[in-house]
Amino acid sequence: MTKAAVIGGGVIGGGWAGRFLLNGWDVAVYDPDPEAERKITAVLDRARLSLPMLYERTLPTEGQLTFATSLAEAVAGAAYIQESVPERLDLKRRVYAEIAAATDTPIGSSTSGFKPSDLGEGLAEPGQVFVAHPFVPVYLLPLVEIVAHPAADHGPLDAAAEILRSLGMHPLRVRAEIDAHIADRFLEAVWREALWLVKDGIATTEEIDDAIRYGFGLRWAQMGLFETYRIGGGEAGMAHFLAQFGPALKWPWTKLMDVPDLDDALVAAVAGQSDAQSGHRSIAELEALRDRNLVAILRALKGQGSAAGALIAEHESRLPAQPPAHGVLTTVDRTIPHDWTDYNGHMNESRFGQAFSDAADAVMAEIGAGPDYIADGLSYFTVDIRIRFLAEAHAGARIRVESQVLDGSGKKLRLFHRMLTAEGTEMATAEQLLIHVSLETRRACPPRADVAERLAALAAEHAHLPPPDPAARLPQR
Amino acid sequence: MTKAAVIGGGVIGGGWAGRFLLNGWDVAVYDPDPEAERKITAVLDRARLSLPMLYERTLPTEGQLTFATSLAEAVAGAAYIQESVPERLDLKRRVYAEIAAATDTPIGSSTSGFKPSDLGEGLAEPGQVFVAHPFVPVYLLPLVEIVAHPAADHGPLDAAAEILRSLGMHPLRVRAEIDAHIADRFLEAVWREALWLVKDGIATTEEIDDAIRYGFGLRWAQMGLFETYRIGGGEAGMAHFLAQFGPALKWPWTKLMDVPDLDDALVAAVAGQSDAQSGHRSIAELEALRDRNLVAILRALKGQGSAAGALIAEHESRLPAQPPAHGVLTTVDRTIPHDWTDYNGHMNESRFGQAFSDAADAVMAEIGAGPDYIADGLSYFTVDIRIRFLAEAHAGARIRVESQVLDGSGKKLRLFHRMLTAEGTEMATAEQLLIHVSLETRRACPPRADVAERLAALAAEHAHLPPPDPAARLPQR
Repeated sequence: MTKAAVIGGGVIGGGWAGRFLLNGWDVAVYDPDPEAERKITAVLDRARLSLPMLYERTLPTEGQLTFATSLAEAVAGAAYIQESVPERLDLKRRVYAEIAAATDTPIGSSTSGFKPSDLGEGLAEPGQVFVAHPFVPVYLLPLVEIVAHPAADHGPLDAAAEILRSLGMHPLRVRAEIDAHIADRFLEAVWREALWLVKDGIATTEEIDDAIRYGFGLRWAQMGLFETYRIGGGEAGMAHFLAQFGPALKWPWTKLMDVPDLDDALVAAVAGQSDAQSGHRSIAELEALRDRNLVAILRALKGQGSAAGALIAEHESRLPAQPPAHGVLTTVDRTIPHDWTDYNGHMNESRFGQAFSDAADAVMAEIGAGPDYIADGLSYFTVDIRIRFLAEAHAGARIRVESQVLDGSGKKLRLFHRMLTAEGTEMATAEQLLIHVSLETRRACPPRADVAERLAALAAEHAHLPPPDPAARLPQR
Repeated sequence: MTKAAVIGGGVIGGGWAGRFLLNGWDVAVYDPDPEAERKITAVLDRARLSLPMLYERTLPTEGQLTFATSLAEAVAGAAYIQESVPERLDLKRRVYAEIAAATDTPIGSSTSGFKPSDLGEGLAEPGQVFVAHPFVPVYLLPLVEIVAHPAADHGPLDAAAEILRSLGMHPLRVRAEIDAHIADRFLEAVWREALWLVKDGIATTEEIDDAIRYGFGLRWAQMGLFETYRIGGGEAGMAHFLAQFGPALKWPWTKLMDVPDLDDALVAAVAGQSDAQSGHRSIAELEALRDRNLVAILRALKGQGSAAGALIAEHESRLPAQPPAHGVLTTVDRTIPHDWTDYNGHMNESRFGQAFSDAADAVMAEIGAGPDYIADGLSYFTVDIRIRFLAEAHAGARIRVESQVLDGSGKKLRLFHRMLTAEGTEMATAEQLLIHVSLETRRACPPRADVAERLAALAAEHAHLPPPDPAARLPQR
């Protein structure tokens, strides 16, 4: 078990704590605010619900959360330190000085605006501080902007980036320090433009949000700016796009030569419009809605193996392996995501089928018929299944499938699956008949010798297991 | 059948043609470019693959596409006219004058920058032209910015917006005309900032795209800017957020006081970095990737009933109803989306289960146990199913499910489903046993009298249908 120190326990610090805890790290939080524990717990509850839903297998056992009574206690023995105190340079510098007196472990700062050379001023080793700027909700969004102090030694920073990667995040190394790094420069530019649009009566806050989420927001969630425009340039390429659209740079298409005055009238206009747009939902409801949407979008991208979804799949492939199987195989061990539930408020019948399909994949991997075998053009197709539904299952619940080989002779693979709650209650059973096929001819054919051999051995081992309830079986010919 | 005229047949015009054709409109295209037909066909092929995947039922029968030899021929009898010629004011004005000589139907312009008062200059009725600015890919992204000429009569414009809504788009009325409307002001601001970041060596094009798609792009795809920030303000509200983050407006967090010079060095840097980032994929591959991702994201949001997904569900609910059922019920008629397929390159077994689950929903609606009944706290739960898989199915294929009631007595609903290709080939069968339940107690109970009666009548009618193949049945007690 490894320890992380989280300094400052608001929405950002709580999100960091969630990322570390749910990836099996112990976390020591330091925050003098008497409300810190309540605030962190609220964020952690959301993280515990949402983050495990991104994966088709379980995350490591959650680490231990402690609240330290001093900075020195929090950072003692910590392999990673993250500072998320309010955006005041004097406060941040005092915190760093106190940490630096106790340890030379690098200190990541969640600052959205300050440069490392601002932050490190006054330290004996100013390069001990680096920017590690995350995005809310920290437990779901993978981006962390990493900015090194000009005097920093890159070895420890590379190690810190590797730690962030092991949490499923994407550490993006910014090539030189500037105010507000990369993403917040865009956010600030759009924010200024948006305030002008409200001030000038061109659009309300809701109309502006619609202009983003019904249009380019959907493009940016998966490709960003340049790859989207590359498509706009067509086969002629990006230089052609620039030649075509470059002239607009000189046109008065943005008000950003100037900055709107955030006077009382503009504040009242923005706040009033925002109330009209979203005031029917509490912040907690908005957070829950945002997290459901983000889980669904991230899982959609994961299904396509693209953008942030590819990151999640890559992280999933590096999660600790299951212990070796004895007897019945544990073929699924996962959390039910939001998008598996239906209007009845429970897991849809098709997702029981999904879990049993995933269970068959795990059996195939066990006998050597995994992704490489499939890439070689051989696979198993399900031809018959019977599922009995015995109990309901809800989003956020952990489920497990145990699988038993009933027959592994010739082209056949006959499996019996039991789905269980974390407490061991039987939720469903399935008998599933698969046939070995060539992916080229799409017709039945015998498995490769090594697969046939491993399958026969597994079937022989499972022949000693208790047979399934006859009432749960497929009709027998 | 209603007719739309599409003037200008590039990527934008082709996207408009797809939206109209796939919603059952006839489309006349006018474009003097001899390549127009080839270009439009390429866009239409992508639209035909992707747009139907957003829906759980079929779109109307595709309308007829014709290529007109003159503007007058294209607009004759058109209920909607959309102009998407290149962004040259003189060219656009010549086109409008010629259309106005033939018809007084309003003319929507796809212009991304010009104001209606620029466009309408010189027309007898300058208000005939309005901005209807869409976003690529037009066949998937719902946003259309609508900007009226100051002199426009709003009646015809309201009618045009209603037509766009009937195509599944979101016509956003901009409150006053400004250069570049709303969304392109943001895109221009971000674009300028991004060019500075590349020029100053802070980040490459790929790093900038990652900073967007791994972070705030995911937030913007579902909530936009203000609702996201509202959460940042917490329960204290938007005014608190403004007070907290307002000062950053005065900080040097954007370079947009200044505009980068798009000289040869900057063009070469952007184009070179973009090649390094995306050059391993052709534009056609990038378009296909983008469309798969967008379909997956839009379907994910549809599953949550949120943002652009809520628009699609609303459009789906307004699609023409199926003809009344005789004998066996057609309970599913839809296109297989990308996210229903798996590593074997075909529809995953769980999605056969999904289609049969949807088929049971349609039977429930048929007997009066639809959404209102469920909202009243009564429903049917599947307790047993057997699915035989007879043929593979692929993304983009149209499938149909025919359903037959085998038993509708007491708390039971026993169904037999057959899944068929568009050509009538049997792909799968399912026998499904459902039990009527109270959603309050989560236990079995008899259906409401009116539902029991309609179910009994349907079962009596279906008793005359040929019985299912005994080999396809669940085990009989």
